[in-house]
Amino acid sequence: MLWPIFAIVISFLAFGVAAYFYKWVKALPSAEGNIDEIGSWIRAGAYTFLKTEYRLLARFAAAVVVLIIIFLPEPIWLADADRFRNIAMALAYVLGSVLSGLAGYVGISIATIANVKSASAARKGLTPSFMAGFRGGAVMGMAVVGTSLAGAAILYMLTSDAEIVLGFSFGASSLALFAKAGGGIFTKTADISADLTGKVELGIPEDDPRNPAVIADNVGDNVGDVAGMGADLFDSNIASLAAAMLLAIPLKQVDIIFCFGGLGLLASIIGVLSTRVGKKGNPGRALNNGTYLTTIIFGVLTLAATLIFDFTIQLWLATAIGLLAGTVIGFTSELFTSDNGKSVQNVARASVSGPAFTILSGFSYGLISSFPAILGIAGASLAAYKVCEPLGGSYPLLGIAMAAVGMLSIVGMIISNDAYGPIVDNARGLAEMGSLGDEVLGITDELDAAGNTAKAITKGFAIGAAGLTVIALLAAYQELLPEGSQMFNIMDPLVFFGLLIGITVPAVFSAMLMMGVTRNAERMVAEIHRQFDQIPGLREGKEGVRPDYNKCIDIATVGALKELIPAGLMAILVTLLVGFVGGVSAIGGFLAGNITSGLLLALLMSNSGGMWDNAKKYIESGNFGGKGSDAHKAAVIGDTVGDPFKDTAGPSINTQITVVSLVSSLCAGLFIMFSVF
Amino acid sequence: MLWPIFAIVISFLAFGVAAYFYKWVKALPSAEGNIDEIGSWIRAGAYTFLKTEYRLLARFAAAVVVLIIIFLPEPIWLADADRFRNIAMALAYVLGSVLSGLAGYVGISIATIANVKSASAARKGLTPSFMAGFRGGAVMGMAVVGTSLAGAAILYMLTSDAEIVLGFSFGASSLALFAKAGGGIFTKTADISADLTGKVELGIPEDDPRNPAVIADNVGDNVGDVAGMGADLFDSNIASLAAAMLLAIPLKQVDIIFCFGGLGLLASIIGVLSTRVGKKGNPGRALNNGTYLTTIIFGVLTLAATLIFDFTIQLWLATAIGLLAGTVIGFTSELFTSDNGKSVQNVARASVSGPAFTILSGFSYGLISSFPAILGIAGASLAAYKVCEPLGGSYPLLGIAMAAVGMLSIVGMIISNDAYGPIVDNARGLAEMGSLGDEVLGITDELDAAGNTAKAITKGFAIGAAGLTVIALLAAYQELLPEGSQMFNIMDPLVFFGLLIGITVPAVFSAMLMMGVTRNAERMVAEIHRQFDQIPGLREGKEGVRPDYNKCIDIATVGALKELIPAGLMAILVTLLVGFVGGVSAIGGFLAGNITSGLLLALLMSNSGGMWDNAKKYIESGNFGGKGSDAHKAAVIGDTVGDPFKDTAGPSINTQITVVSLVSSLCAGLFIMFSVF
Repeated sequence: MLWPIFAIVISFLAFGVAAYFYKWVKALPSAEGNIDEIGSWIRAGAYTFLKTEYRLLARFAAAVVVLIIIFLPEPIWLADADRFRNIAMALAYVLGSVLSGLAGYVGISIATIANVKSASAARKGLTPSFMAGFRGGAVMGMAVVGTSLAGAAILYMLTSDAEIVLGFSFGASSLALFAKAGGGIFTKTADISADLTGKVELGIPEDDPRNPAVIADNVGDNVGDVAGMGADLFDSNIASLAAAMLLAIPLKQVDIIFCFGGLGLLASIIGVLSTRVGKKGNPGRALNNGTYLTTIIFGVLTLAATLIFDFTIQLWLATAIGLLAGTVIGFTSELFTSDNGKSVQNVARASVSGPAFTILSGFSYGLISSFPAILGIAGASLAAYKVCEPLGGSYPLLGIAMAAVGMLSIVGMIISNDAYGPIVDNARGLAEMGSLGDEVLGITDELDAAGNTAKAITKGFAIGAAGLTVIALLAAYQELLPEGSQMFNIMDPLVFFGLLIGITVPAVFSAMLMMGVTRNAERMVAEIHRQFDQIPGLREGKEGVRPDYNKCIDIATVGALKELIPAGLMAILVTLLVGFVGGVSAIGGFLAGNITSGLLLALLMSNSGGMWDNAKKYIESGNFGGKGSDAHKAAVIGDTVGDPFKDTAGPSINTQITVVSLVSSLCAGLFIMFSVF
Repeated sequence: MLWPIFAIVISFLAFGVAAYFYKWVKALPSAEGNIDEIGSWIRAGAYTFLKTEYRLLARFAAAVVVLIIIFLPEPIWLADADRFRNIAMALAYVLGSVLSGLAGYVGISIATIANVKSASAARKGLTPSFMAGFRGGAVMGMAVVGTSLAGAAILYMLTSDAEIVLGFSFGASSLALFAKAGGGIFTKTADISADLTGKVELGIPEDDPRNPAVIADNVGDNVGDVAGMGADLFDSNIASLAAAMLLAIPLKQVDIIFCFGGLGLLASIIGVLSTRVGKKGNPGRALNNGTYLTTIIFGVLTLAATLIFDFTIQLWLATAIGLLAGTVIGFTSELFTSDNGKSVQNVARASVSGPAFTILSGFSYGLISSFPAILGIAGASLAAYKVCEPLGGSYPLLGIAMAAVGMLSIVGMIISNDAYGPIVDNARGLAEMGSLGDEVLGITDELDAAGNTAKAITKGFAIGAAGLTVIALLAAYQELLPEGSQMFNIMDPLVFFGLLIGITVPAVFSAMLMMGVTRNAERMVAEIHRQFDQIPGLREGKEGVRPDYNKCIDIATVGALKELIPAGLMAILVTLLVGFVGGVSAIGGFLAGNITSGLLLALLMSNSGGMWDNAKKYIESGNFGGKGSDAHKAAVIGDTVGDPFKDTAGPSINTQITVVSLVSSLCAGLFIMFSVF
């Protein structure tokens, strides 16, 4: 039990760092003027969303808890069922949701302070503004990884039962589904509605305070990108640990998981603490350097630990392979979505011929961009397997799980970089709404651009990590089956049937979310029109006249959760249907189909969305006619299509795949007992 | 050998019907005015494309022949290799290409006569104009099915070697790749360029003779839709026969394949002969009634034959399941793409909010539309397998192949309906270019609309048929492997690696084709601008001034073939790479990935493209503001995106999957001998 304790100690160290950063950011000088006030509206809006989300989630979780107690891991009415295990799993499920929710709450709470501080600090220069944004994000990073690692370690120490950890993971995924997909619908509803009514109809700037949707838009950055992405990576991180534990317990190799998990968090702490930027420094490079540093420290520390404590060297190799693949995938995403890249520039060039060509070229590049990332995932899992093959038994599968653990080891640093993005994006908005002047806007723009690049990298990373994790979960699923049913032969018609149905689920799921965004945006646009019509002086910007921001926040909140539930239920119900009809082998195929098509669609949507966004920015920076040209108008249409692609559907697919994988693993026993075939 | 002879006899009957229709159409009264002249330009343009395509194909085929002789089915240098078999396979390959090419040639040659006759006949009313179009299309239908069935039967009688028939099938697929993907790039290059320069820039009607691309556009309908779709279904038909034969020969069940193949063609002959429409009749209903009639006749005839000749009744059931699934999938496609359907109307409604919403909603519905069709394919293959499972051995796999045969049994009728579409589309264009007046235009419009609906159905049908066929090919591939390597366990890392790489190939392939269209369209638009600038009086429509139509046809031809080759080679090379690296089990996963993601993308692209097209037409018929409204402009953008989706990339994926499946089966022996793992 030495290494789980080590992991818990490091987790508490991370909490310490988070608390230090929290205080540090909070102690930064407060802003003058109305920035504080606007910031407080954003904060209140974000809390409103969280409260509604958590209330709904609590009801959902209550239902799941009842189901778990009755059915999982074994139906309670069976003579030899261990009923305490059912209760333990239910508690683990609740713990997973609560810890993930807590981490999201902490993240939002600091992000909505750090945005104001970062905007205020920008008046003193780039360095303090960057530090406010980054350290605010790092609070989230430390909180997420600390709680997930400590939670898994404590559960393991209490139960030594990997299936219970799967329940914990399922709790985290349930929350992630709400946070990521719900937040994704929220943020794009507000973003699109604000753009359509503000920029397009009235010709007012992006963050003009006259626009009733402008606060909702800034809230969206927080709930979609801070809380949502945090919950997504929390979820992947726990799932990778759970899958690895499930495979490692029979092999007595759990120590290495907690050792590497702890060292990964330690490396992230060092990385986060040493990230800073000079007065004339490049914030993008500072973020990347932090990631490199963390990666190197992790590699060195784990190799040293492996040699000193005599861990199996092949497992270290598998971990290193995963880490390497994560880095490669992240930077491939950047290559495709950066405005220095050929693809973004070609999408911008195509926009000269009209919006149809913007769409066609971005979509085509998006399809192509899936290839290197999927090759990376395929190569990493094959290499990790082959490296561990000489060890025999289920070591090769553990190798794949360790690759997932390795990829996620630096997740503390990744989340910090990622949460930095929406904070400085908000800071930019506050600087504009508070009229802080062009010099400050210049600084916040530069910080924002670095955040966008970081986001492209972390999004690719998140998809890659989810990919490896669900492959590990598939291995864990197989491990849970009795001897003889562990073969998913593609030529078995049930497996093939499952495979075919599996590929359609991410497609239908993402379509439902995107339709949710457009339906919800229609509602919000109608409300904005109503306000402009009925509030006298609003359109003209008369002194003291203020729109009803809360109404828009309400629409986004209620709509997001309403639209998300059918999509989430669809994914879960289809899984159960396939399982109860086709049995465990159909589920084997189903998961493979779900994973593969999920990866394809997630990469397509995230990357083409990123390309359209940056093609628009590339044109705005003066190319192909610049702002206001026909090419720009075409690129704006591309960007609007890309918004739900890259911020709603694309990244939510990760969570959908994980949820479905966990449901399958947890219900494997039920499928064996009750399936038709 | 009774049944192969029966199939050959019916094939010759089909040739007789084709010859009769050919003469019948040709004997229709010729047009007056300049329609004949314009028609002759279209014909000349189509021949130009075919000639260039066939010349290129000949070179490609020559290279393949050399490779076959050296390597397939077994490397020639092996001591026990039967070298005559290599030569037989090379000859079969050539025969497959030549017969498919011949059928395409016959189809184009009658289609480019029937368009003029249909336009002329429209002055006498709906009935004669419909009959000219339909019987012209039926020539293609009869020629395609007759040659494919007779070819397979003759080869079987000569060699009794199913692998040789695979070679025949590979020849047909190679041609289909050129015809479908090349034709698809050609037709959309011309269509988009004509629209952009004509409708958008100059505001002249679709088929205005001043537009230098207008003849190329009409040529495109012929080479893309007549020759391309014909080659695609020729290819699927042979592939399904080859897969079924490969599985049936060891079971001594070949008779039923040729019996059912012959009866399917007979049913199509009866269906085609009895299709007609009254003066006030509904041409769309006439086409559907023909399909229903053919389906029923086929069902009855095959059941009778099964009972009389004592065939295995389970195999008949599997055939009937396939036929039923084909019908269901076809009509689901129609449901999603018909303008009476909810989805098309919602896409039209979304266009009111702007083009981004047109794209988002069409794309979302496209994703959802994949579900029923894939469920149909999955259900059909599972049911066919289960029905034949009690027979044991490889009967269940033969069941899947028989389902594919069943689905394709009515293909003679399907191709006739499909080829009718571009003929009456051309007739409409000729009526406009020849100024035949509004009444005639009204008739040709009605015929054209029926053709569009028929096209949606046949496109869904073609994808479904290709889906079942490639599943059968996967079974055939497995059958070719030695005992012990016939298991493609998803948990085998090589299988999973293959699966992951497999899903990316259709994505990259379709992206390359779509990029080919946009690149090629840029070239053609530049040429059109040049002509308008440099030919005095062209823009104003001065009497006697005529654009250089041939230059546009040349650009479309050369560009199409140039853009297609890298995409085709990519698919083949990746297959070989996966095979020579990961061996036969990686290929098993690779094929499964390729099939599943290919189906998903093909359905998404075909159906969303169809929805955008019909949403535009729905608005043009007076809804949501009608022609010229903002909604209409948005829908036009959607339609332009949809063009390469539905007519280039979507339907070409079928062919790509089939080619890759055949390459895998043919090279299975080589992979076993030479793979790295």
